[in-house]
Amino acid sequence: MIEPRTLKGFRDHLPAQALARERVLDIARRVYRSYGFTPIDTPALEYLEILTGKGSEETDKQMYRFTDHGGREVGMRFDLTVPFARFAAQHVHDLGLPFKRYHMAAVWRGENTQRGRYREFMQCDFDTIGTTSPVADLEMVLVVHDLLAAIGVERFTIRVNDRRVLGGILGRLGLADRSTGVLRSLDKLGKATPEAVAAELTGQGVAADAAAALLEMASLSGAADAVLTRLDVLVGESEQGRAGVAALRGLVAAAGAAGVASERLVIDPSIARGLDYYTGIVLESFLDDLPTLGSICSGGRYDNLAGLYTKQPLPGVGASLGIDRLLAGLEELGRTSAVETPADVFLVYFDAAHLTDYLRIAAALRAAGVAVEFFPEPKKLGQQLKLAAKRGFPAALVIGSDEFAKGTAQLKHLATQASAPIDWRGDLHVLVDAVKSLLTR
Amino acid sequence: MIEPRTLKGFRDHLPAQALARERVLDIARRVYRSYGFTPIDTPALEYLEILTGKGSEETDKQMYRFTDHGGREVGMRFDLTVPFARFAAQHVHDLGLPFKRYHMAAVWRGENTQRGRYREFMQCDFDTIGTTSPVADLEMVLVVHDLLAAIGVERFTIRVNDRRVLGGILGRLGLADRSTGVLRSLDKLGKATPEAVAAELTGQGVAADAAAALLEMASLSGAADAVLTRLDVLVGESEQGRAGVAALRGLVAAAGAAGVASERLVIDPSIARGLDYYTGIVLESFLDDLPTLGSICSGGRYDNLAGLYTKQPLPGVGASLGIDRLLAGLEELGRTSAVETPADVFLVYFDAAHLTDYLRIAAALRAAGVAVEFFPEPKKLGQQLKLAAKRGFPAALVIGSDEFAKGTAQLKHLATQASAPIDWRGDLHVLVDAVKSLLTR
Repeated sequence: MIEPRTLKGFRDHLPAQALARERVLDIARRVYRSYGFTPIDTPALEYLEILTGKGSEETDKQMYRFTDHGGREVGMRFDLTVPFARFAAQHVHDLGLPFKRYHMAAVWRGENTQRGRYREFMQCDFDTIGTTSPVADLEMVLVVHDLLAAIGVERFTIRVNDRRVLGGILGRLGLADRSTGVLRSLDKLGKATPEAVAAELTGQGVAADAAAALLEMASLSGAADAVLTRLDVLVGESEQGRAGVAALRGLVAAAGAAGVASERLVIDPSIARGLDYYTGIVLESFLDDLPTLGSICSGGRYDNLAGLYTKQPLPGVGASLGIDRLLAGLEELGRTSAVETPADVFLVYFDAAHLTDYLRIAAALRAAGVAVEFFPEPKKLGQQLKLAAKRGFPAALVIGSDEFAKGTAQLKHLATQASAPIDWRGDLHVLVDAVKSLLTR
Repeated sequence: MIEPRTLKGFRDHLPAQALARERVLDIARRVYRSYGFTPIDTPALEYLEILTGKGSEETDKQMYRFTDHGGREVGMRFDLTVPFARFAAQHVHDLGLPFKRYHMAAVWRGENTQRGRYREFMQCDFDTIGTTSPVADLEMVLVVHDLLAAIGVERFTIRVNDRRVLGGILGRLGLADRSTGVLRSLDKLGKATPEAVAAELTGQGVAADAAAALLEMASLSGAADAVLTRLDVLVGESEQGRAGVAALRGLVAAAGAAGVASERLVIDPSIARGLDYYTGIVLESFLDDLPTLGSICSGGRYDNLAGLYTKQPLPGVGASLGIDRLLAGLEELGRTSAVETPADVFLVYFDAAHLTDYLRIAAALRAAGVAVEFFPEPKKLGQQLKLAAKRGFPAALVIGSDEFAKGTAQLKHLATQASAPIDWRGDLHVLVDAVKSLLTR
């Protein structure tokens, strides 16, 4: 006997979890599609040379890699961005530009499994490549907004920044070559005091007034207009900085025009995201009721997606929904359901003599769009209803021999145990209409 | 520069292919759910001991396997049945029985890439475990029927058999221990002449009249009643054989009662499927217009799913949709679309001064369920329309400065190049209703 178990860091999705995930994936698919993002897929395995050195040292180390049957060095994808870069370089002439794709698929990282991290998880990316238009940046914000709204999270905040704002300020302060160290220090705000961060900055040779300007920038919050006015001052005459502030100003105005409530879109100059990769707008998004959960949808603009695979410059902008983190958050908020079935009605199997009647009833309900699970054996009513209740069916349709004789039925709401009588007199249409109407109550 | 390429036997899904696949997956999901099958998911990687020796010698050889960072021997799943067996053994007490699941996911086999076979492909399985009820067998037939009908294939045939029919005939002929060899020989019918197969059977020591009976069985075709009457004679007094014929008789009758047209469900005693695994009803299904494509959805009943992982017997019945084969068939029949976008409308970006108007229009259309791609740059009309036509958008919405001034618009049907004028006078509701109504024409 072999012990049935999963690998450390891997997990099964049982019905309730799998249903919750399918629901969110379905919403993401619908929102991405509503903006014209089109699906693509790439293989789980790639040539190792495609994958190595494209993420961080850490992702290289964590990558699942091996030699295949043909002696090829291969790796399992650790994200969807590197495969998309390879894909875009390979197919750009077929795709045309600008090109908007979404990709929802599993990725693998052999990382430390502490803190609820898994070695197999799903990413849901969307990107627009082949344009530098701010409309594409704006669409990223709108997609994230529509996605979180469609999932039914009422309270969420999208935080945006533009990497050029910091770049401009650093340039004006004569610290253009210090951005990595400065970002590392500023990232500690929140955990460390402003004084400690200022000390760290001056320790790197940043002048005290420059450190103060950087700290002010990273601490700005509040209404967009006020933040932008302060940023105008902080970037001074820096062309790069002014471009960043102008982009943020345009983004906030256009998002408002497109229907985004102002409290849901906040300029947050402390957001940096990726020391080198992102070059323009950057975005993170948070559930207001779970501030410690971290960003559930993050992204930004980059100058060139696929420079390692093609000479054609492919600027773009995109974000990724962290669906596992989002589902964990929804669960913590009590917003996930324990329901284990996708069906609407549990049809009790009472009387074997009426099998064909049950089959016709189930077929008629399905044809009318009602999903029906028919219990496969005429077991005791209590046993069947117990299973139906355990699985969270909204209702059970009970029709025994007497009911068939009289042309009646009972629709039992399993949560309340209340039964509604149906008088259908052998007419399937009447039965189907009655069930549909009772289900929507 | 690294050459952007995929591994041999692996492939990218470009938008048109990915959209076609999502469409079929969506239909499969809807049909599976309509019967109460619930989604589950399992990891791509399993302990090697879970996977080895569970398929065939061939799958063992083809399996992608390696040692992970923690020194564990692991393998990538080569089907969804073995992981389901492990899953069922591990979670049966949480799941309750009977349990109905579907699982749609990629599997990997490092097999020969001839004949359009891929090393990564998708399986779409559904199974009912924990019951021996013939209702579960029937549901397998109904699900396959509804699935093929929902995909829009008008002409298809579901072929069923029961493994006990052959078992009964072999028993009656005193050949119970010869089933493997007999099945191998009978499988050659179609490629070899009946005489050659008969000679092969007698070469194995099968008596001439027994060989004749077996050949007659495997060649039976035509109306279910006639086939069943002959099978009654061929199985004689064999209890096992009579059970098989009775099961087929009940299945065909019940499927008819549930609405399956008789020409779509055929008893075919030549279908064997799996020398040892299947023990009852077996099923294959074919597109009538592509007889050489092979079965696109196959399955059957088995006595025990997870005997290697648990002592609890888990009898079940299920089938698997070969989505890659089906998609290849649909393409061959000219039933796939070359459309590369999921969106309904391409919104032309004409006039940067009206950006917020375009954004409001796009948002209003999306809120009304119309998917809209807004071109991100105010480029030349011809260039935008060319891309829209290439991608197969049904329609482009054209609103330039003049149209905004007059409150008019043009909805251009890209296939016919015909334009329909819209007089919306600045009222978004009027515009949205007009677009929706023009799109459905």
